[in-house]
Amino acid sequence: MAKLPTLQDQLGQPVAGNGLLHRRFFLQTGAAIAGVAAASTIAQAESIGAGSPETMLKPGAGFTGYGVPSHWRNNVQRIVPQNVPPARVNTGSSRTPWHLLEGTITPGGLHYVRNHNGTPDIDPEKHTLTIHGMVKQPLVFTLDTLLRYTMRTEIHFMECAGNSGGMNAPQVPQQTVGDIHGLLSGSEWTGVKLSTLLDEAGLDPKAPWILAEGADGVGMSRSVPVWKAMDDAMIALYQNGEPIRPEQGFPMRLLLPGFEGNTNVKWLRRLKVIDTPMHTKDETSRYSELMPDGKARQFMLQMEPKSMIVKPSFGMTMRGPGYYEISGVAWSGLGRVAKVEVSADGGKSWAEAALTAPVLSKALTRFRLPWMWNSQPVTLMSRTTDEKGLVQKTHAEWAAQYAPRQGFHFNAIQRWAIAADGKVSNIYV
Amino acid sequence: MAKLPTLQDQLGQPVAGNGLLHRRFFLQTGAAIAGVAAASTIAQAESIGAGSPETMLKPGAGFTGYGVPSHWRNNVQRIVPQNVPPARVNTGSSRTPWHLLEGTITPGGLHYVRNHNGTPDIDPEKHTLTIHGMVKQPLVFTLDTLLRYTMRTEIHFMECAGNSGGMNAPQVPQQTVGDIHGLLSGSEWTGVKLSTLLDEAGLDPKAPWILAEGADGVGMSRSVPVWKAMDDAMIALYQNGEPIRPEQGFPMRLLLPGFEGNTNVKWLRRLKVIDTPMHTKDETSRYSELMPDGKARQFMLQMEPKSMIVKPSFGMTMRGPGYYEISGVAWSGLGRVAKVEVSADGGKSWAEAALTAPVLSKALTRFRLPWMWNSQPVTLMSRTTDEKGLVQKTHAEWAAQYAPRQGFHFNAIQRWAIAADGKVSNIYV
Repeated sequence: MAKLPTLQDQLGQPVAGNGLLHRRFFLQTGAAIAGVAAASTIAQAESIGAGSPETMLKPGAGFTGYGVPSHWRNNVQRIVPQNVPPARVNTGSSRTPWHLLEGTITPGGLHYVRNHNGTPDIDPEKHTLTIHGMVKQPLVFTLDTLLRYTMRTEIHFMECAGNSGGMNAPQVPQQTVGDIHGLLSGSEWTGVKLSTLLDEAGLDPKAPWILAEGADGVGMSRSVPVWKAMDDAMIALYQNGEPIRPEQGFPMRLLLPGFEGNTNVKWLRRLKVIDTPMHTKDETSRYSELMPDGKARQFMLQMEPKSMIVKPSFGMTMRGPGYYEISGVAWSGLGRVAKVEVSADGGKSWAEAALTAPVLSKALTRFRLPWMWNSQPVTLMSRTTDEKGLVQKTHAEWAAQYAPRQGFHFNAIQRWAIAADGKVSNIYV
Repeated sequence: MAKLPTLQDQLGQPVAGNGLLHRRFFLQTGAAIAGVAAASTIAQAESIGAGSPETMLKPGAGFTGYGVPSHWRNNVQRIVPQNVPPARVNTGSSRTPWHLLEGTITPGGLHYVRNHNGTPDIDPEKHTLTIHGMVKQPLVFTLDTLLRYTMRTEIHFMECAGNSGGMNAPQVPQQTVGDIHGLLSGSEWTGVKLSTLLDEAGLDPKAPWILAEGADGVGMSRSVPVWKAMDDAMIALYQNGEPIRPEQGFPMRLLLPGFEGNTNVKWLRRLKVIDTPMHTKDETSRYSELMPDGKARQFMLQMEPKSMIVKPSFGMTMRGPGYYEISGVAWSGLGRVAKVEVSADGGKSWAEAALTAPVLSKALTRFRLPWMWNSQPVTLMSRTTDEKGLVQKTHAEWAAQYAPRQGFHFNAIQRWAIAADGKVSNIYV
């Protein structure tokens, strides 16, 4: 009589091409499957406890007011601009090194920074936020007065509209995930709901736009739709629990969950309610998309669904055939991630990845999928569908929407090619 | 004809003594209610944009590899031990300054530290984790082999069993929330599920305990029940997205969600499966509770429901009558927070606070409640009920369980007295 297959047997079967396993493989079966779990050395009984490591033979270091990462991990740094001309030393971006990180929260010290004229040093006692224009009563807020209001705490991603723009260059970038997609970070933000302040000022119900201005050396200014300001916009005062840091807008920034990073104006000093967008420098010369007809599209503000496979990725090398975890991050500026699918055969077949709870709106979601690699060359891809039903396009479909080399709002499906020798490279097709 | 009360009118009425408002007051009505919103200055039209702040007149600072907080907030530091004898300089604790923070995530630099012989400096290439004892096959794991396994990412609190112990001293501590309750922090942790490794080693199904040992100078060791190890225990490798820091156990720590902090052994080097608890120094001389009959209770491992009102609290002064937000943090080591109730009349009446989503199991939950203070003296209290139905006890009920001055596992309801002059003090009754 044939033995019936167990759940473990069933889940251990690939669900898509080239060895992708069911996302519940580990959840349902445990991992005690010979040959699947990663290599672990068999202990020689005599070696266990035979000698204490030297750290056990002496006291360790004392207490510090503000701790720092391990010196053994001093490579875990933001990717900062190299060879910048002296006149532009404060303009550009530093990137989050996703290939060295895990989870979904980005430590403050590693949050990406996109500055247009450096990080200002603002005395919080002197800083004010003015709301004026099409309101019944202009108002000025100090930090102290803002701290009197009801606060909100929410986890959201921040992504620069120019993130991954290099993916539309003719030459495929052979770079790490941080280099390619590192203008992206995730944080817990706390602040005051903007609608509360606009209500208090007496917003003109016909007003369609708000100009947000920062107190930095470029006077960063962006036009923001009133619907967004009245929906889930926040004046953010804290990030990951502590006062927001200078590079992120200390003492306050505009937070527009899911909107392109640049509109989340840092060092916010002024919100002017206006009847038409202002067509500022940063919504004309950049942060607009050149279309096939030669016109530029303005005010594409929402970041659409996207994902990146972080493990494995460029710079990592597979260690021979066997079990691996495919892991990455997915997000959408329109709401929750509904599903992430992974392909190991270049898009011919797809397996649904496990999403790490909680899956939050306009926040980074970690996905994971077990995989048996047989050491043959494969192409890995990931594809996010969000709760509004939007799906990541292929690279060709994405590029066809724009003029050649347009690089804003890149959110196409990416391909990592795994070679037989375990090397990972970035490919377009 | 009498005008019908609006929803705003209804929600604006107190729901409990001394001005506590309905938790949906802001969510449902907006805040444009004269005299309720915090003071904001009326802008003089001529002053708007009359002069740019000096930060707009020059470039700001350039890019950094690992960012730091604002120098204007260099008071936001952990509370470190003072006047420690030289022989004990590496033993003790530093506390999270909750009175200066918001939200639920604690930045790595401000996570509390409880060390028994300092923070060791461990070379991650030399560190190993051994699983032995009552298993079919002893195993040794390097960091590299652990990184091959499927990872889990979860948000959990960590709390020292001695947290808030000063609250059972005869003299009421007049200290900040950080001083009193700061052996508590919240993080996103990523690592390998311990049950996966124990399954692979072939755990003896009859084995009831596991000894966990750290590689620090005290050789910290604790007995952990197998049921917990096989439930939700994790070998944590990342904290808030980055490699776990030295003060938190680099390169790896045991994470036992909801268990007293000390059992979450840092710098984990060994897990020995055993048939009886080991009665180590840190489960006999401390981290046990002296009972009224003179016996000590061991192995009370779960942290029971608790809460702290952070705003207002000791060290803050109310600025006259008007609208305030009461805000704090609640948690339970047994699961999710089901509700937090707040009283402004010393416990005679209670209002349910709003809980900030997501409310996660064994994680910190921020609660908020709108409040109209009429500048009369009041007593504020908060009380957590968890999803298992456990409720915080009164101070007297809590103390009656133990011998006098027993200070572990303090989780009684705390009282902040607000005086007519706006000063906040800590009181027991």
